[in-house]
Amino acid sequence: MTAIAYILTGWNLESWTNAMRQLEPSMDIRSYPDGMGRLEEIGYALAWRPPPHVLEGIKNLKAIFSLGAGVDAILADPTVPDVPIVRIVDADMTMRMSEFVVMHVLMHHRQQKRIDENQRAKLWDPFATHAANALKVGIMGFGVLGQDAGAKLKAMGFEVAGWSQSKKHVAGIETFAGRAELDAFLARSDILVVLLPHTAETTHIINRDLIAKLSRNGPFGAPILINAGRGKLQKERDLIHCLETGQLHAASLDVFEEEPLAQDSALWTHPRVYVSSHVAADSDPLTISRNVLRQIRRHEAGGALENIVDPRRGY
Amino acid sequence: MTAIAYILTGWNLESWTNAMRQLEPSMDIRSYPDGMGRLEEIGYALAWRPPPHVLEGIKNLKAIFSLGAGVDAILADPTVPDVPIVRIVDADMTMRMSEFVVMHVLMHHRQQKRIDENQRAKLWDPFATHAANALKVGIMGFGVLGQDAGAKLKAMGFEVAGWSQSKKHVAGIETFAGRAELDAFLARSDILVVLLPHTAETTHIINRDLIAKLSRNGPFGAPILINAGRGKLQKERDLIHCLETGQLHAASLDVFEEEPLAQDSALWTHPRVYVSSHVAADSDPLTISRNVLRQIRRHEAGGALENIVDPRRGY
Repeated sequence: MTAIAYILTGWNLESWTNAMRQLEPSMDIRSYPDGMGRLEEIGYALAWRPPPHVLEGIKNLKAIFSLGAGVDAILADPTVPDVPIVRIVDADMTMRMSEFVVMHVLMHHRQQKRIDENQRAKLWDPFATHAANALKVGIMGFGVLGQDAGAKLKAMGFEVAGWSQSKKHVAGIETFAGRAELDAFLARSDILVVLLPHTAETTHIINRDLIAKLSRNGPFGAPILINAGRGKLQKERDLIHCLETGQLHAASLDVFEEEPLAQDSALWTHPRVYVSSHVAADSDPLTISRNVLRQIRRHEAGGALENIVDPRRGY
Repeated sequence: MTAIAYILTGWNLESWTNAMRQLEPSMDIRSYPDGMGRLEEIGYALAWRPPPHVLEGIKNLKAIFSLGAGVDAILADPTVPDVPIVRIVDADMTMRMSEFVVMHVLMHHRQQKRIDENQRAKLWDPFATHAANALKVGIMGFGVLGQDAGAKLKAMGFEVAGWSQSKKHVAGIETFAGRAELDAFLARSDILVVLLPHTAETTHIINRDLIAKLSRNGPFGAPILINAGRGKLQKERDLIHCLETGQLHAASLDVFEEEPLAQDSALWTHPRVYVSSHVAADSDPLTISRNVLRQIRRHEAGGALENIVDPRRGY
């Protein structure tokens, strides 16, 4: 079989090559930067944030697999060969993203930061909370990940709606689409969950203007933001301003404009902000590799690839 | 209509009487201790931890509604008139309990305490986590509350099993029943969720011996306990010992042997223990009152009451 090459930035190479060897011991595995061998033998690139120009020289490339959710780094490089880019839509990754979203919605709803603070103060404080259906959750980015999180939040009792670029029809969930319906979607959302891809159009979409359009009718009087999509979607200066002025009640941020988040960012220390280190939907090497291997085998046998990125759309 | 009397300990009386007045303005509402009026006019007692001997004098009592989940205080008073005791099984309360259970399982699974600690230290630490299906959750007490939480945890990807006194059959969930199957249930459970009622048999059931029987095969090497049932189920001295020796990895405790939890309890400050103030399944006055009112009307019209407690069983 044709060789495959791992081109990873910021990820542990060995955990990926080990996973692939475990699944297919005979696989010819190359790796960037020191183990690429003869480039013309490489048929598939398995990439995460590949550096510019690295894919350019692979003449017989048949497809690029993006091992994480998000293909912005690949699309940003104009020298990438004109082959299908496969976005891994993996059940495991979807489950993990929904865990993150459901957990953070619940932690805000049940005021876990207040409970943690009470515990530190050894304060017994049986305060009352609203029922879940008092909170309207809006999921911005309503593809596979958003719909799965939405269904789980609905099962937990929250009022869920989804917004996406193109109209989606999901049983029992109100959906909004396109710029024309964005303001109505924002106006009904007490908690905004952002799972958008990063494209030219979505850069800095989470800014002061968007936050001003969110609902003030929820139990906390001001909206809550959960961004588990991409850091470049948010304008952090605006987030900090809105948190300080109370226009934003609280936030959960897993992604940032620059990662790691700078030591002097006010987000680290805000009392109602959860900061995590881009861990919402961790890519598990073994399950992702199983998906990639299955697709490579099918493609080699003349079958189709799944979830091919539309470069014009950006995802 | 016959009068109703509220007999509440530690709860806000006004929020309950206001809710009932909102639903039925003509209701003849009495309240303990100062507004009971002529006792023989009272047909229904709406109680939460009624003091001993208070129910004794109500000669024309037709039923007692326990407004919270747990009837141990009522059953412990031998002077309570021999009338049906109704345990409120309320969808709202069930939803709230499942929120608590799902949130705490997720917080342990995703190591939220470690993430909080990293945030305080401004440490960027994208550590890997296991998939949900690597964790086996065992729910002890598998009635309405336990089954609802179990279904939601299963949807999130966890391996769920339930244990109850009498065998339950639930699609897709392994169930265990009675003392004979308890050890097998404990041996497969990485996270033990306790939702048992408090009876003579369950007092101090969560002790050193039980913890020793839990699984050590989960991703954390030692089991995790979530008690959202009753405080008297747990022997706190044993819990502290097991936490300190590592036999118990972590815990979420919403209930305690004595409430409020004593200021000098080591549970407040243990780095892997969540303490909350008996808030897991808050009783919402309006939704509970709606349930009670519906049952009173039906009973007055000759219909049956729902979820009557079996005093021998204790729940």
